[in-house]
Amino acid sequence: MNRKMIAYILGRVFLAEFFLMIPAVIVGLVYKESEALSFALPMAILVVAGLIFGMKKPQNTVIYVRDGFFIVAAAWIFMALAGAIPFYLCGHFESVWDCIFEMVSGFTTTGATVLGDPGALPKCILFWRSFSHWVGGMGVLVFVLAIMPMSDSLHIMRAEVPGPVVGKLVPKMRQTAIILYALYAVMTAILAIFLLCGGMPVFDAVCSAFGTAGTGGFSVRTEGIAYYNSAYIEMVLAVFMILFGINFNLFYLILIKRFKEFFKSEELKVYLVLVVTVTLLIAGNIYSIYGSVSESLRHAFFHTAAIITTTGYGTVDYALLWPSFAQILIVLITITGGCAGSTAGGLKLSRVMLLFKTFAQEMKHLLHPRAVTTVRLEGAPVENTIVRSTLVYFVMYVFIMIVSTVIISIDGFDFTTNLTAEITCFNNVGPGLGMVGPMGNFSAYSPLSKMVLSFNMLLGRLEIFPIIVFFSPSSWKKNVR
Amino acid sequence: MNRKMIAYILGRVFLAEFFLMIPAVIVGLVYKESEALSFALPMAILVVAGLIFGMKKPQNTVIYVRDGFFIVAAAWIFMALAGAIPFYLCGHFESVWDCIFEMVSGFTTTGATVLGDPGALPKCILFWRSFSHWVGGMGVLVFVLAIMPMSDSLHIMRAEVPGPVVGKLVPKMRQTAIILYALYAVMTAILAIFLLCGGMPVFDAVCSAFGTAGTGGFSVRTEGIAYYNSAYIEMVLAVFMILFGINFNLFYLILIKRFKEFFKSEELKVYLVLVVTVTLLIAGNIYSIYGSVSESLRHAFFHTAAIITTTGYGTVDYALLWPSFAQILIVLITITGGCAGSTAGGLKLSRVMLLFKTFAQEMKHLLHPRAVTTVRLEGAPVENTIVRSTLVYFVMYVFIMIVSTVIISIDGFDFTTNLTAEITCFNNVGPGLGMVGPMGNFSAYSPLSKMVLSFNMLLGRLEIFPIIVFFSPSSWKKNVR
Repeated sequence: MNRKMIAYILGRVFLAEFFLMIPAVIVGLVYKESEALSFALPMAILVVAGLIFGMKKPQNTVIYVRDGFFIVAAAWIFMALAGAIPFYLCGHFESVWDCIFEMVSGFTTTGATVLGDPGALPKCILFWRSFSHWVGGMGVLVFVLAIMPMSDSLHIMRAEVPGPVVGKLVPKMRQTAIILYALYAVMTAILAIFLLCGGMPVFDAVCSAFGTAGTGGFSVRTEGIAYYNSAYIEMVLAVFMILFGINFNLFYLILIKRFKEFFKSEELKVYLVLVVTVTLLIAGNIYSIYGSVSESLRHAFFHTAAIITTTGYGTVDYALLWPSFAQILIVLITITGGCAGSTAGGLKLSRVMLLFKTFAQEMKHLLHPRAVTTVRLEGAPVENTIVRSTLVYFVMYVFIMIVSTVIISIDGFDFTTNLTAEITCFNNVGPGLGMVGPMGNFSAYSPLSKMVLSFNMLLGRLEIFPIIVFFSPSSWKKNVR
Repeated sequence: MNRKMIAYILGRVFLAEFFLMIPAVIVGLVYKESEALSFALPMAILVVAGLIFGMKKPQNTVIYVRDGFFIVAAAWIFMALAGAIPFYLCGHFESVWDCIFEMVSGFTTTGATVLGDPGALPKCILFWRSFSHWVGGMGVLVFVLAIMPMSDSLHIMRAEVPGPVVGKLVPKMRQTAIILYALYAVMTAILAIFLLCGGMPVFDAVCSAFGTAGTGGFSVRTEGIAYYNSAYIEMVLAVFMILFGINFNLFYLILIKRFKEFFKSEELKVYLVLVVTVTLLIAGNIYSIYGSVSESLRHAFFHTAAIITTTGYGTVDYALLWPSFAQILIVLITITGGCAGSTAGGLKLSRVMLLFKTFAQEMKHLLHPRAVTTVRLEGAPVENTIVRSTLVYFVMYVFIMIVSTVIISIDGFDFTTNLTAEITCFNNVGPGLGMVGPMGNFSAYSPLSKMVLSFNMLLGRLEIFPIIVFFSPSSWKKNVR
């Protein structure tokens, strides 16, 4: 491992977080909030640590696969801890565990909250909470790569960008990062303008745009999106949530006018078909509750978009009101998630497709042992090592979910609450069923459970491997190759 | 595919089922029950079909892998349908769907019931219900292989005996089958004698021995094992359940005095450690309810044994009384199941171990890309094709569970009920949580859900692949190789 390079990049991440906190401080100054002072200590720590580690670039800048995983995990863990300090100092949270949970939930774009009344928070804290979704959505290291010239950064990008395979848009990784962030920023701005046109206050529009773009789900209102009670706002958010759940590489194809390739994407087709199917199934299932086709479709489409993209906005309490068939569909798309290379969480559809195709291949092999078969995705054959690591990923995914559910069950809440709390955190969605439904929150859980769930959010966002590399004892021994 | 040979073996299976019904008729005659007549029609059908298909052995007796899967699936489906006829004709079941559900539950050793008051059934029907556990436990084709000289039967055995790898005990498959059934019969008889010594009536002892040996779980009393209210009987059953959850190949090692190898078994160690750990965790968790160490240990051990071996006996309503931590542990061992090559269901521990080891290998490979690693189980390297098919098996296992839960959710019961109903049927255990807890039953589900759950029991018992081969359209085309 190249420790000097790891320290250098982490230093850069600290500096980046220092700069990312500035907008929140400005919001605090604009609204004349004393809580803006809560950012002073973490910013001081970040700038000092950043200057110590991030000033001198080492001679050897080569980064190994393992280093990439380690850097990403370390960056996310330290960022979340530093980012939680303003929450703690502002005095609106009950414990240090609550602050960590809320901050991890922010950066990982989960949107699960421990707050019963988030609308009561000062604006600078609300801003930081929503802004963390935006930073975490595209990835903080992608951001650092975009602003910092570096040669050998594929391994970092691979570890941070979700999905089984990561494609470069252009030969240079740094330019890929710049294109991604530019696209992301422009789309977020357009969304904010649409929301303003719907009569949303400026502060709400900006924060909601952050929460949507990162597919996070924190809202600045205690009632969430239901507060605005506007079909226009819900539809704008639903459409943009769907957009942010699409692989960003595809938007780049549109940008360079390769429309044909855009529409040829297998994953995109599966994604859109799934959105339409689940929307119609839910609408049919909840029709008897709302008694109107348009009302049923509105709620079905909004929540399908909110859950499949793992944003997790809610306007109705489906955990309480909807029939179990609609509820289980919500859980189902909690698990699948959106497209790889988007800001959405979950398993990612291309991974689900790869698993299905591998199964089909195995069956074909069983039925026709002599036939030669390969698994193909997006028209190209998939390497055996990727197939295998995807299979292993799925195994770990299920195991982590089961073990974590067992641990949080110690708190004694019901089975539905525990299982869906775990599923929703691990898949970075936000709401579950039972006590943690869209109108509930996670405050009742013990500190142990909150830490387990926070850990799960990180495991889910970074897709397991980096976190395991970080906590592997061999990563901390001297002289590791 | 060798269709003639498939038909011939199925004919043999029909004849075998004809003979297996005779004891139930005798029970009916002894107790002078008119319901014994319900067996006349199915027995007539079985003997005619058996004689038509099973009399003339074809010239070509070669069986391909695919044929093995097909035969096993077909045998189980037809057997269950024929076996359900007495249930229907006896008039104690509400619908034909209930009869099929109950019979599939019997043969697959699930033990889930649609009856609110099974104790009210006539004895000949109760006997057939419990006896089906015994037949399904070791497998009907293993039985047919044991009584019928056949050269090329490894593929059949492989398709019916649970677990990722099937070992031959002796070079000849037929002798392996005979040894297995002999061991099975002797152990069942010993158990029945132990139960008689505890004061159980003869009929109850015999039926309970069948239900335990096959790790099924049907009881002849409405109150289940709680009816006898005897710590002795519970402990005898618990110990024998644990024994029947052990790979039978290991008992053969004891028989031929290779004790060292018996105790070297990795899977056995994991199994025993898991039983002890879960027993202690549950006992600790339920101590506050029972207020006595011995009482807590008794209930914890009995139910741990009942669930991990997928028998599913229950003496207390843990779905209602126990804290959620104990409940989730019950669900956890519902999934793992017992050892491969035993009568237990679930994923099987050796498969779980293989999945863990594959993950460990993947992580090692990630951390040390140049190191050469192989997955080893029971001291021997595991072939890559087996690792891969185990991974694929797990993927399908989870997918089937999710899709089935979605379908049965249409009925509108709560999430916990639906998910655990599916898990318990698919893993051939019997009771779940919520409405289908140990004191509940499956009668409230719609015919569609009952068929989905029955299908799941077959998928679980035969480990997915045979059923898929059977329903694959290409298996029904002419001239398939």
